[in-house]
Amino acid sequence: MKKTFDVAIIGGGIIGCSIAYYLAKEKLDVAVFESQQIGGKATSAAAGMLGAHSECDDLNLFYPFARSSQLAYLHLQEELKEISGIDIGLTHGGIYKLAFSESDKMQLLPTISLPTVDWFDADKVRKSEPCITSNVMGAAYIRDDVHVLPLSVCKSFSKSAQMLGASVFEFTNVLDMHKKDSSYVIKTTKGSFDSNLVVVANGVWSSTFFQNLGLEQKLVPVKGECISVFNDGVPLKHTLFHDHNYIMPRKNGKLVIGATMIENDWNEAPTLGGVEQLIAKAKSILPTITDLRLDSYWAGLRPQTFDQRPFIGTHPEQDGILFATGHYRNGILLAPATGQMIRDLILQKEVRKDWVEAFKINRLKPVLSRR
Amino acid sequence: MKKTFDVAIIGGGIIGCSIAYYLAKEKLDVAVFESQQIGGKATSAAAGMLGAHSECDDLNLFYPFARSSQLAYLHLQEELKEISGIDIGLTHGGIYKLAFSESDKMQLLPTISLPTVDWFDADKVRKSEPCITSNVMGAAYIRDDVHVLPLSVCKSFSKSAQMLGASVFEFTNVLDMHKKDSSYVIKTTKGSFDSNLVVVANGVWSSTFFQNLGLEQKLVPVKGECISVFNDGVPLKHTLFHDHNYIMPRKNGKLVIGATMIENDWNEAPTLGGVEQLIAKAKSILPTITDLRLDSYWAGLRPQTFDQRPFIGTHPEQDGILFATGHYRNGILLAPATGQMIRDLILQKEVRKDWVEAFKINRLKPVLSRR
Amino acid sequence: MKKTFDVAIIGGGIIGCSIAYYLAKEKLDVAVFESQQIGGKATSAAAGMLGAHSECDDLNLFYPFARSSQLAYLHLQEELKEISGIDIGLTHGGIYKLAFSESDKMQLLPTISLPTVDWFDADKVRKSEPCITSNVMGAAYIRDDVHVLPLSVCKSFSKSAQMLGASVFEFTNVLDMHKKDSSYVIKTTKGSFDSNLVVVANGVWSSTFFQNLGLEQKLVPVKGECISVFNDGVPLKHTLFHDHNYIMPRKNGKLVIGATMIENDWNEAPTLGGVEQLIAKAKSILPTITDLRLDSYWAGLRPQTFDQRPFIGTHPEQDGILFATGHYRNGILLAPATGQMIRDLILQKEVRKDWVEAFKINRLKPVLSRR
Amino acid sequence: MKKTFDVAIIGGGIIGCSIAYYLAKEKLDVAVFESQQIGGKATSAAAGMLGAHSECDDLNLFYPFARSSQLAYLHLQEELKEISGIDIGLTHGGIYKLAFSESDKMQLLPTISLPTVDWFDADKVRKSEPCITSNVMGAAYIRDDVHVLPLSVCKSFSKSAQMLGASVFEFTNVLDMHKKDSSYVIKTTKGSFDSNLVVVANGVWSSTFFQNLGLEQKLVPVKGECISVFNDGVPLKHTLFHDHNYIMPRKNGKLVIGATMIENDWNEAPTLGGVEQLIAKAKSILPTITDLRLDSYWAGLRPQTFDQRPFIGTHPEQDGILFATGHYRNGILLAPATGQMIRDLILQKEVRKDWVEAFKINRLKPVLSRR
Ligand SMILES: Cc1cc2nc3c(=O)[nH]c(=O)nc-3n(C[C@H](O)[C@H](O)[C@H](O)COP(=O)(O)OP(=O)(O)OC[C@H]3O[C@@H](n4cnc5c(N)ncnc54)[C@H](O)[C@@H]3O)c2cc1C
Ligand SMILES: Cc1cc2nc3c(=O)[nH]c(=O)nc-3n(C[C@H](O)[C@H](O)[C@H](O)COP(=O)(O)OP(=O)(O)OC[C@H]3O[C@@H](n4cnc5c(N)ncnc54)[C@H](O)[C@@H]3O)c2cc1C
Ligand SMILES: Cc1cc2nc3c(=O)[nH]c(=O)nc-3n(C[C@H](O)[C@H](O)[C@H](O)COP(=O)(O)OP(=O)(O)OC[C@H]3O[C@@H](n4cnc5c(N)ncnc54)[C@H](O)[C@@H]3O)c2cc1C
Ligand SMILES: Cc1cc2nc3c(=O)[nH]c(=O)nc-3n(C[C@H](O)[C@H](O)[C@H](O)COP(=O)(O)OP(=O)(O)OC[C@H]3O[C@@H](n4cnc5c(N)ncnc54)[C@H](O)[C@@H]3O)c2cc1C
Repeated sequence: MKKTFDVAIIGGGIIGCSIAYYLAKEKLDVAVFESQQIGGKATSAAAGMLGAHSECDDLNLFYPFARSSQLAYLHLQEELKEISGIDIGLTHGGIYKLAFSESDKMQLLPTISLPTVDWFDADKVRKSEPCITSNVMGAAYIRDDVHVLPLSVCKSFSKSAQMLGASVFEFTNVLDMHKKDSSYVIKTTKGSFDSNLVVVANGVWSSTFFQNLGLEQKLVPVKGECISVFNDGVPLKHTLFHDHNYIMPRKNGKLVIGATMIENDWNEAPTLGGVEQLIAKAKSILPTITDLRLDSYWAGLRPQTFDQRPFIGTHPEQDGILFATGHYRNGILLAPATGQMIRDLILQKEVRKDWVEAFKINRLKPVLSRR
Repeated sequence: MKKTFDVAIIGGGIIGCSIAYYLAKEKLDVAVFESQQIGGKATSAAAGMLGAHSECDDLNLFYPFARSSQLAYLHLQEELKEISGIDIGLTHGGIYKLAFSESDKMQLLPTISLPTVDWFDADKVRKSEPCITSNVMGAAYIRDDVHVLPLSVCKSFSKSAQMLGASVFEFTNVLDMHKKDSSYVIKTTKGSFDSNLVVVANGVWSSTFFQNLGLEQKLVPVKGECISVFNDGVPLKHTLFHDHNYIMPRKNGKLVIGATMIENDWNEAPTLGGVEQLIAKAKSILPTITDLRLDSYWAGLRPQTFDQRPFIGTHPEQDGILFATGHYRNGILLAPATGQMIRDLILQKEVRKDWVEAFKINRLKPVLSRR
Repeated sequence: MKKTFDVAIIGGGIIGCSIAYYLAKEKLDVAVFESQQIGGKATSAAAGMLGAHSECDDLNLFYPFARSSQLAYLHLQEELKEISGIDIGLTHGGIYKLAFSESDKMQLLPTISLPTVDWFDADKVRKSEPCITSNVMGAAYIRDDVHVLPLSVCKSFSKSAQMLGASVFEFTNVLDMHKKDSSYVIKTTKGSFDSNLVVVANGVWSSTFFQNLGLEQKLVPVKGECISVFNDGVPLKHTLFHDHNYIMPRKNGKLVIGATMIENDWNEAPTLGGVEQLIAKAKSILPTITDLRLDSYWAGLRPQTFDQRPFIGTHPEQDGILFATGHYRNGILLAPATGQMIRDLILQKEVRKDWVEAFKINRLKPVLSRR
Repeated sequence: MKKTFDVAIIGGGIIGCSIAYYLAKEKLDVAVFESQQIGGKATSAAAGMLGAHSECDDLNLFYPFARSSQLAYLHLQEELKEISGIDIGLTHGGIYKLAFSESDKMQLLPTISLPTVDWFDADKVRKSEPCITSNVMGAAYIRDDVHVLPLSVCKSFSKSAQMLGASVFEFTNVLDMHKKDSSYVIKTTKGSFDSNLVVVANGVWSSTFFQNLGLEQKLVPVKGECISVFNDGVPLKHTLFHDHNYIMPRKNGKLVIGATMIENDWNEAPTLGGVEQLIAKAKSILPTITDLRLDSYWAGLRPQTFDQRPFIGTHPEQDGILFATGHYRNGILLAPATGQMIRDLILQKEVRKDWVEAFKINRLKPVLSRR
């Protein structure tokens, strides 16, 4: 078994796999260490919205980063299909971010001001989506906030990286890492490996390494539960979004209903209470949804930082350690931009200064306004 | 393929399989025709309560029948295990039929008057089941209303019958039957079969044959939805029952939550609305249940007659046709007694007159008080 | 509930749903009766190959029909996506029909002679698919024999038909039909319906109606079992096909391995023996496939006619009854052309004479050469 | 959250949970840390044979230990049912350890010499199990080697321990432990905990802690794959065992076919190759098994030590650390005896000296004859 690499990536979620892909394209010798199976944690739980507009209200810094990632998906679709044979399931359609009250509408104003976003009044919304509740006041229509199949994106990054020479070790838990001479020893359940660089990208579990690396930051899980239903009868063309909840029409004819927000719960399985809450919310948006048949249910842990923005960058004291974690509600959206930023940091290409500052792990202040 | 039988049983649910078992024991040459898989319909959806006391308020006629069936299970457990190797999962424990109000308690009075039933006040109930809601006023404790695993009972009847010589045809839909000389021709998707006697035992689908047999009766489906949860933390020893709903602790550590009552819905899959209703009811009985993790969900169709009592007996004009169907909410409970009664009718043994009258398909009046 | 229709279609598999779609587009008032769930039988078991070239060796009659159907899929993809929101999953890539011996190659000659097909020698095949066994001699490369997701096609036909006004009744078993005055009474488990025209399209179960309709034909099930595996490591771009068996790369990164051929077995579940056979065959084509992880397994019943060609056309004596059944190994491929042909027969548009002759139910001789 | 305990147990498989149970019964304040879900790893993959005779050929030391554990199950069944409500599924029936050749028979001689074991010749075996292959020469009939449902045992230990006061932390990965003053700090993904004693019981992953604890031993995974089938037709009353493979009839009417032995493979999912091997072996024992329908498939990692005997005992230098791991093929069988031995070591009760010597982690020589 090969034991020495240029870059060791800890975590085979969408973030780790995106990084592996962008580095393998540059011919770096990369290994991904995944304690369970590729994409099996938060990544496979995600709905897959590319919510550059719907999730990002900070228009100067976070939005441009998110938007660049969203646009990157347009190219990736073909590129990854070509190399891996896997289709990432990018949709058309976009999101209606709903307003039920004046105050809802108020909050949408910055979003609506964007050139790619329109305001639709209640009539227009209901004309386009006749089954929506009559309580709706209007919606911001964001045509570019489409969605992908998160597990397909992740597997397609991973398989493409392998095709380009990367090594992927599943069922390999990283226990620890320490510097030895000019490189790092990665201790895993399958033995030790050597690597010049290490990228910590194991989602909410990343913070288990922080203390040993002399960092005080931490990640808190925000559990999200989802259900899906067979959509036999309710016509729905757009994702309906309100207050962190959404109903999303998949291309296979199912609807995904997401997602709860349970802070500090590490349990990765949906509870009765969570399911109850999802149904209540979905019903308040799309009343006839209660007639649809249940298909499936699941949960995942969003990795949350103190200011809900990711940690992307180099360790403050150790050049050889990089972080790419804490993507909270937006890891699917941000995966391409994160992979590119890590690549550029490693290859010492130019990276936007304000992004470097904003996402560095030892930042003291929140990235601008948090939500 | 063998094509001629003494008795052809239409339907391989728990009723058809029970009949096959009791007839095969008497060395009759029996065939079961099942359009899909043994026990796959209402039978596998049932919770498996043997609610002789909790479901039967008519103490003169229906209760004795139900009670005899309940008692029959005590012997069957060993007998079926011996022949088939399958364990029917009979439990100890019994049911608390809860009262939340004086009127609830009033309705329980006849049940409480039975020698095998006790009244427990709120304190006593909560002492025994500490997680129960504080709204409870008391409960009828029915120690004999235990439960079984319905699919295991059904498979065990079916396999035992086979061991004793019966033929079981799965994926064989019966389309029609008609008299030819002194016997019947059974037309199926796998060709025609001959039989001296025919037992119509195909649950809610039985009524598709009624018209051709000159009968005006019909069966109406009452869809029931259930969910089950992993019970990691909530101690629960007894089934909690209120107003057609229940929370039942299984011997594998799961809780079954049942069941909705949706009349005239033929769709055999649970809807979001049904699941919502179940959670709401379960929460009102056992508040901490919302913390438990969802395991599974399913639905089935209860075969309902006009008076909610089964049709068990011979066709009014054709001796060769028998019925054993319409067991509504109690087919699991009543399977042994039904099998025995059909056996006795066929072998012309003695059968209680009042039962023959009460369950005959051409009865005009309801079996006593309906609920 | 609406009870009267222009056209009643029996069976909600891909054939019934395609017909419903093409008729609803013409504003006919259509009902589909499906005994279980839309697409749940043979349709959802199919791999979804559009094998116009790989499955059809009769170049004069069956190939043009199949080819027209294959080409229809190109338009349908967009059309159905637009109306139903469901993506039918049409791929690029095509098939390698493998030759392991001179005699294999001989059999491929007619196929290779087609303008859209190329012969690749062993080197070329292995260059393109490096994991293929070294025993391969060469392959016919058929770029147009791509594949779709059969259940998605079926649901998308069904949902589009509904959007265009059709009624779809699930869990509704058709028991019988008979003429009454100028129309037909359709007897179902949900009551009776009236219709001017009836299309019998319920797959292998269609022949249950033949006898009552005065026909001597019958359908024989040919059970097909499949398995799928997670393809983590084996690069594969094309479907590999040999002797009724195939390994097909899906766009979600899985491989489908199909399919056994068990004549006259009505059991719709895979057996150990079938799975063993599939693995043995797959291994002989792609040796490293044994390292891949099992994902799923299933089976379905192909509706086979005496000459393995479908019955499409009008009842010889009753104008109001049409047939669209017996599509054997090619129902997915042939669904669009079948829907169009039934539409044209009903609307009395022009239909190719030789097709009408070839597919009529009362044909005496096989459709040309059978395989 | 409670943070200080008497005993911290790492690993919530059957071994960790058994220990928790026996300690909680003694009123010790116990915590179990489980990185995923209780019993989700090797434990839930096990068939559950209690093979004291069939697996243990060392009659002086390992057999008595195993036998005492086997006998302990007889009491546990009632005890655990009473406390937790969970039924561990103990069967009757026992095992036929088959001989196909003289040399097979030779190897069985020591087993046959035991008072609880009988030799059955081919006739007697086939009379009792008529479907067995005619190649069989005879069998050792071991009536006490019955089986349990491993996950039910584990959950029932865990829940009973909780009822008796223990804390169970799921989704809590232990990263490290170190001494601090007179107690230990347990570092987990959910923060740090303190404990006087630590029991390392996390199956094959235990050895990740060995190096830091100054030990040179290691554990090697031996992956085992299984499948199960629906047993509709083949009568089978006893487990059939040959050369590490077996066919086991469960009380729910299914057969479990196990298990492959793949050394040093950490991947916890069955491969096509493994399934192929299982079917081939099962067929050679019970030819008609190929007709049965596939139900499910899974895999798990057996924790193997250098001499295939467990490590049970105290750390050679640190009193506060105990080990209970490396149970290889027999963790289900050995769970009760292991729990009792750890309890006795902790409470300083008497423990058989030869067992202490035999199972101590720093033993130099194998426990007697290995197989
Ligand atoms: C319900 C829900 C809905 C969501 N919806 C969206 C959405 O619509 N759009 C969006 O952009 N985002 C969404 N998200 C957020 C998104 O899922 C996450 O931000 C993203 O998946 C994070 O990816 P990751 O690779 O960092 O983490 P993960 O996917 O959790 O991957 C981390 C990996 O590291 C592995 N690992 C952990 N510890 C170790 C170790 N010690 N050694 C080796 N491997 C280890 C884990 O097994 C895991 O596979 C959603 C999240 C949830 C829960
Ligand atoms: C949610 C729920 C909970 C329940 N809980 C309980 C309970 O706790 N206790 C209790 O006693 N009862 C309970 N019941 C009721 C019980 O399930 C039914 O009364 C019982 O299963 C009826 O058995 P059956 O054999 O008549 O019908 P089914 O189990 O429906 O069997 C009928 C069979 O006939 C087959 N069939 C249909 N048509 C044909 C044909 N033409 N040819 C061949 N085969 C055909 C079907 O495929 C089916 O397998 C419950 C029911 C539900 C839905
Ligand atoms: C393993 C396998 C692989 C295959 N691969 C391919 C492939 O790659 N390409 C290809 O072109 N074809 C393939 N086929 C063949 C293809 O699946 C069939 O030809 C096609 O699905 C037939 O469609 P259908 O609608 O006629 O039948 P079905 O899909 O079986 O639909 C018939 C429907 O009628 C319903 N029904 C039955 N009786 C009644 C009744 N009395 N009342 C109401 N409803 C009723 C059933 O429930 C069912 O849903 C494959 C088949 C199998 C089994
Ligand atoms: C196919 C198969 C068949 C078998 N059949 C039998 C049989 O018939 N009879 C028999 O006696 N035995 C059988 N065995 C063997 C038996 O399963 C094992 O010996 C037994 O399960 C070991 O139990 P365990 O608790 O040590 O390990 P596990 O069940 O693997 O439990 C270890 C637990 O530790 C957790 N863990 C790991 N690392 C950490 C950490 N760092 N922090 C916290 N938790 C952690 C894991 O998640 C896991 O839940 C079989 C095994 C297999 C694979």
